[in-house]
Amino acid sequence: MALPTRTRAARMYGARDLRVEELAVPQIGPDDVLVAVAAVGVCGSDMHYYDAGRNGLNVVRQPTVLGHEAAGVVIAAGTTSGVATGTRVAVEPAVGCGTCPTCREGRYNICPVGTCLGSPPTDGTMSEYLVVPARSVHALPESIDTVTGAMIEPLAVAVWAVQRAQVRVGHRVLITGSGPIGILAAQVARAAGATEIVMTDVNDDRLAMALTFGATRVINTARDELDVTGVDRVLECTGVPTAAWSAITTVKPGGRVTVVGQAAPAVDGLPLAFLQRYEIDLVTAFRYAHAFPTAIALVESGAVDIERVITGRFALADTAKALQAPVLDPSHLKVVVTPMPKGA
Amino acid sequence: MALPTRTRAARMYGARDLRVEELAVPQIGPDDVLVAVAAVGVCGSDMHYYDAGRNGLNVVRQPTVLGHEAAGVVIAAGTTSGVATGTRVAVEPAVGCGTCPTCREGRYNICPVGTCLGSPPTDGTMSEYLVVPARSVHALPESIDTVTGAMIEPLAVAVWAVQRAQVRVGHRVLITGSGPIGILAAQVARAAGATEIVMTDVNDDRLAMALTFGATRVINTARDELDVTGVDRVLECTGVPTAAWSAITTVKPGGRVTVVGQAAPAVDGLPLAFLQRYEIDLVTAFRYAHAFPTAIALVESGAVDIERVITGRFALADTAKALQAPVLDPSHLKVVVTPMPKGA
Amino acid sequence: MALPTRTRAARMYGARDLRVEELAVPQIGPDDVLVAVAAVGVCGSDMHYYDAGRNGLNVVRQPTVLGHEAAGVVIAAGTTSGVATGTRVAVEPAVGCGTCPTCREGRYNICPVGTCLGSPPTDGTMSEYLVVPARSVHALPESIDTVTGAMIEPLAVAVWAVQRAQVRVGHRVLITGSGPIGILAAQVARAAGATEIVMTDVNDDRLAMALTFGATRVINTARDELDVTGVDRVLECTGVPTAAWSAITTVKPGGRVTVVGQAAPAVDGLPLAFLQRYEIDLVTAFRYAHAFPTAIALVESGAVDIERVITGRFALADTAKALQAPVLDPSHLKVVVTPMPKGA
Amino acid sequence: MALPTRTRAARMYGARDLRVEELAVPQIGPDDVLVAVAAVGVCGSDMHYYDAGRNGLNVVRQPTVLGHEAAGVVIAAGTTSGVATGTRVAVEPAVGCGTCPTCREGRYNICPVGTCLGSPPTDGTMSEYLVVPARSVHALPESIDTVTGAMIEPLAVAVWAVQRAQVRVGHRVLITGSGPIGILAAQVARAAGATEIVMTDVNDDRLAMALTFGATRVINTARDELDVTGVDRVLECTGVPTAAWSAITTVKPGGRVTVVGQAAPAVDGLPLAFLQRYEIDLVTAFRYAHAFPTAIALVESGAVDIERVITGRFALADTAKALQAPVLDPSHLKVVVTPMPKGA
Repeated sequence: MALPTRTRAARMYGARDLRVEELAVPQIGPDDVLVAVAAVGVCGSDMHYYDAGRNGLNVVRQPTVLGHEAAGVVIAAGTTSGVATGTRVAVEPAVGCGTCPTCREGRYNICPVGTCLGSPPTDGTMSEYLVVPARSVHALPESIDTVTGAMIEPLAVAVWAVQRAQVRVGHRVLITGSGPIGILAAQVARAAGATEIVMTDVNDDRLAMALTFGATRVINTARDELDVTGVDRVLECTGVPTAAWSAITTVKPGGRVTVVGQAAPAVDGLPLAFLQRYEIDLVTAFRYAHAFPTAIALVESGAVDIERVITGRFALADTAKALQAPVLDPSHLKVVVTPMPKGA
Repeated sequence: MALPTRTRAARMYGARDLRVEELAVPQIGPDDVLVAVAAVGVCGSDMHYYDAGRNGLNVVRQPTVLGHEAAGVVIAAGTTSGVATGTRVAVEPAVGCGTCPTCREGRYNICPVGTCLGSPPTDGTMSEYLVVPARSVHALPESIDTVTGAMIEPLAVAVWAVQRAQVRVGHRVLITGSGPIGILAAQVARAAGATEIVMTDVNDDRLAMALTFGATRVINTARDELDVTGVDRVLECTGVPTAAWSAITTVKPGGRVTVVGQAAPAVDGLPLAFLQRYEIDLVTAFRYAHAFPTAIALVESGAVDIERVITGRFALADTAKALQAPVLDPSHLKVVVTPMPKGA
Repeated sequence: MALPTRTRAARMYGARDLRVEELAVPQIGPDDVLVAVAAVGVCGSDMHYYDAGRNGLNVVRQPTVLGHEAAGVVIAAGTTSGVATGTRVAVEPAVGCGTCPTCREGRYNICPVGTCLGSPPTDGTMSEYLVVPARSVHALPESIDTVTGAMIEPLAVAVWAVQRAQVRVGHRVLITGSGPIGILAAQVARAAGATEIVMTDVNDDRLAMALTFGATRVINTARDELDVTGVDRVLECTGVPTAAWSAITTVKPGGRVTVVGQAAPAVDGLPLAFLQRYEIDLVTAFRYAHAFPTAIALVESGAVDIERVITGRFALADTAKALQAPVLDPSHLKVVVTPMPKGA
Repeated sequence: MALPTRTRAARMYGARDLRVEELAVPQIGPDDVLVAVAAVGVCGSDMHYYDAGRNGLNVVRQPTVLGHEAAGVVIAAGTTSGVATGTRVAVEPAVGCGTCPTCREGRYNICPVGTCLGSPPTDGTMSEYLVVPARSVHALPESIDTVTGAMIEPLAVAVWAVQRAQVRVGHRVLITGSGPIGILAAQVARAAGATEIVMTDVNDDRLAMALTFGATRVINTARDELDVTGVDRVLECTGVPTAAWSAITTVKPGGRVTVVGQAAPAVDGLPLAFLQRYEIDLVTAFRYAHAFPTAIALVESGAVDIERVITGRFALADTAKALQAPVLDPSHLKVVVTPMPKGA
């Protein structure tokens, strides 16, 4: 079978300027695989790129293909890749340099020179075809269909967040923010043994959804007081840490607060004296390391439901619509773009 | 209401010499509570005492009330105990001295001079009435009935075992031995995020039961080969570590083996070169520390089922029968003696 | 020998109002000891109380004896105290309630209801005689003279800081602030295996002193740039975290910043995005737990020098002078008040 | 300068059959370096190979160059190696596959398919010239001369042992065995904060030497009782764990025993009940991971003395003599073979 040489892809040119264009498919090297992309999840960072042409410090300076939450089917594999053609896979978009001390100690997610698909200037996954190193793909078991497999990436974020948070059996956990990451983190926290999970948000639809995904209690902090005390862990998933600082006083002595949502460069009002009086640790989670196999195992075992997290599907041609859907309709949890929904 | 001054209790005098006798109820101090005992679980160690007049190095040298897995109702409470009369409680039988460095660092379970109810010469819980310090009782939530509450103690053993084993989300776990502790440990391992749980035993009835409690695969090692590789954790729950050594070669590099079953003083054949080549840690679990609240929370949240673990109930007068029941009928998982089944 | 019934003590009445008065010596209980106080170190917090009648959130609302860094000689001991008369001891001033979960897990330093000698309204140690529980005194070995023993308390702060910081062999450590705690922390960090210790301050005298106590390099941040990169650990010992935030960018991926200096209630400008990008943990140290024996062992073994840390001695009557000495003469590192320099 | 094409090397052919022969020098690849070997330390494993043609399970089945503790001078470097010609280096002999999960998580020392120079069938370092990957060499600072640099490898063993043992400030440590690894481990334990280090051996010469390297007390266990109690850590460095089991009863509750010496496949008499009663962890150390930079920093900072560890030097032609020297003269600590003592 002749391999595809051209692929359609959704490229950002700047704020609100997204074009679906035809690009060349790179040749695969001996350690690479060529993936027909079934689905790509839309992340908050994608929405920021679309809206503002930037996400945090990262600016679109040249046309860049968007997207980093992908799954698909391997349709060609390099000679030493060790991957069989036809394998259905989730794609891990971030890679470290592999040689710095940080990478060698296994923490490739915080490699100073690491890159991530869909983070400018590195092209992303919203494309019919994608070439990635074989070590970046993780086989999906039969129980996970290929489109749903696109949710393994955000689930890996949640897995890593819960690992960094050190959630343990019997813990009481507070999760600020009931968006997709909050809801996936709630499921993983539950899987890790949390017996009480309080979730907050300012949107009642999301809180209602949170209750169906494992929250044992929800609080609309736009309306009600955060009347919680003595939690073991806080996972901040709003991206607005100042809002989360109020959650710090709910933590019991020796507890731990983990910032998962994308943080601002300089944050005011940190209640440091409180953190110190009770030796509450403040840690962060950045992407994930070694988390894809765990994410897949959690879905496979039934501990986590990612299928119900997808609330909308859009064709590649409708990527711009997909990027606005969660804003226009807050009942959306996650939407996916489906370049090749049937894979190969 | 006048407090009881006499209590019937099951006292060991030596091997196969157990007598239900009437004893005086001690007066409660200001920090004590008086518990009407609803149920007491029968542990393997109780069966050893009954059979042989000893358990490991611990010998019955004077008449000693048996039992350490108890729940009941507080019918009187000391002035500074902080416990309300009528509170239904699980009893934590082991206490540390409270002043040695080990206790002060929070590891009271391994206090060199700690004692445990039902470990000679300390009287145990197979008694209608029991006086214990207030800090030894843990309130049961409504969802746990008092007789079932006797299972909180063995569940605490399992909780501590899983904590010592450091079972994490996505782990593959091998549990050797499918007795009560193995089955409770399987449930807690599942609650802690294990996505695969292989259990072994030499009895098919127990293995069938294991499958209903969360085992994803069972192996009768009397008949079949232990064809498992790459597990993250082994929990040895047979009490026969030499049998478990074969399980060590199933562990992946950097894994961890936790001996939960009661170990012999000197054990031969440790595959130390294998442990070293792959830096597999060998750790142990002894009783529990701070595990009762977690055990109760796990049952309350629905993550663990202890009700179905009880397969037989016996009156206090029939304690000797209870002690033989699991041997005579291997389909028994746990039997309880019920001195005051309705509590107060 | 008749026990003393009266003691002179330095009592705060408010800002700049310190009076040396005669007070009654409490009777000792069976678990208590009576200490003739040889020396009491002056801490920055003592200086704040003297200057402003408050320290952080803690306000002098009633006359309170100052001081918490004490050593002396036991001149009477309760019957069950287990301490021999004549024992020279360092006094651990902070105690937890002993019964809350935090205390029971061994973290008594962050007990929500714990108290500390010299923290209003609890009377402190600047007194000829002092009654404390036996568990609060730690015997001094022959190699540590009694007056020098007053430095065990600030050394315990440094020990705990280094433990919380997880300093390990081969680490490169940055310590912001070269006051007494910074200099003691440098010595402990060295003892814990740090092979490079950069210290900062805005005072050249202190930096010169730092070089004699183990700093491998010093930087006057009032004058020079903090041109350091890739440190494993930062210990913030200035009490001005905003100044320390600039130190965060010197930390390598996966490193750890520990706030030791007393922190303000709300701190601005936290570089959270940087912490997150490199998963640098932000933790704090509050007092100490189980650190006195380690502090004593470090001095006894020669790894840490506390004798040279004391740069001035004052009689109890001159406590007010002692409290101003480090401000008036910045070449002072630590001054002590010596109520009974010869002990008993 | 023309690169050498031939090298003399000490090759094992079997028990007591070692031949110094001329071999071809392999061509260097772009990521490789060519090292002129200044010195190679003689390890106990080398002596086993010489004596018995095997070491543990590893058998000499084909002629294999011996040696794995090497330092030298880089005389040629591949284009992408990032190493400058003339760099003096210590050689890290063990490499993982780099792609298995164990390697990717940073624990390359226990990679199931990893190899080590000088472990048959992989040729070792007792050779004038040596080609290794650039990531296997670690630059020596000026303060470490090249011949002494051969001791970085055994020091890395000791560093890793102490890291695995989790030695902390204030610890009391027992080291069984006062050979080279025991003595290096004592120095590193001291550097890590141990304040008391008891060392054992059956040879008084070695014990006398141990006292000069940081042991605070020595015990000849062939003659005297091991009258030690309450140690925090045991490092077993004899290679005869059964002898070390007696050391286990000296460990305090919650302590840790680390087997560093090469362990036998099956070891009898493990005091498992004792380990369990006090939850003493039994762990092992295999080679090292990420330990060379720490080893070098410890020497550079003056915390560890490796120069005095070398007690004899032999020319390459006298390798067989070097391999017998420590047996014939027990006052030897470490001998080195010096193929090219001046390097390039």
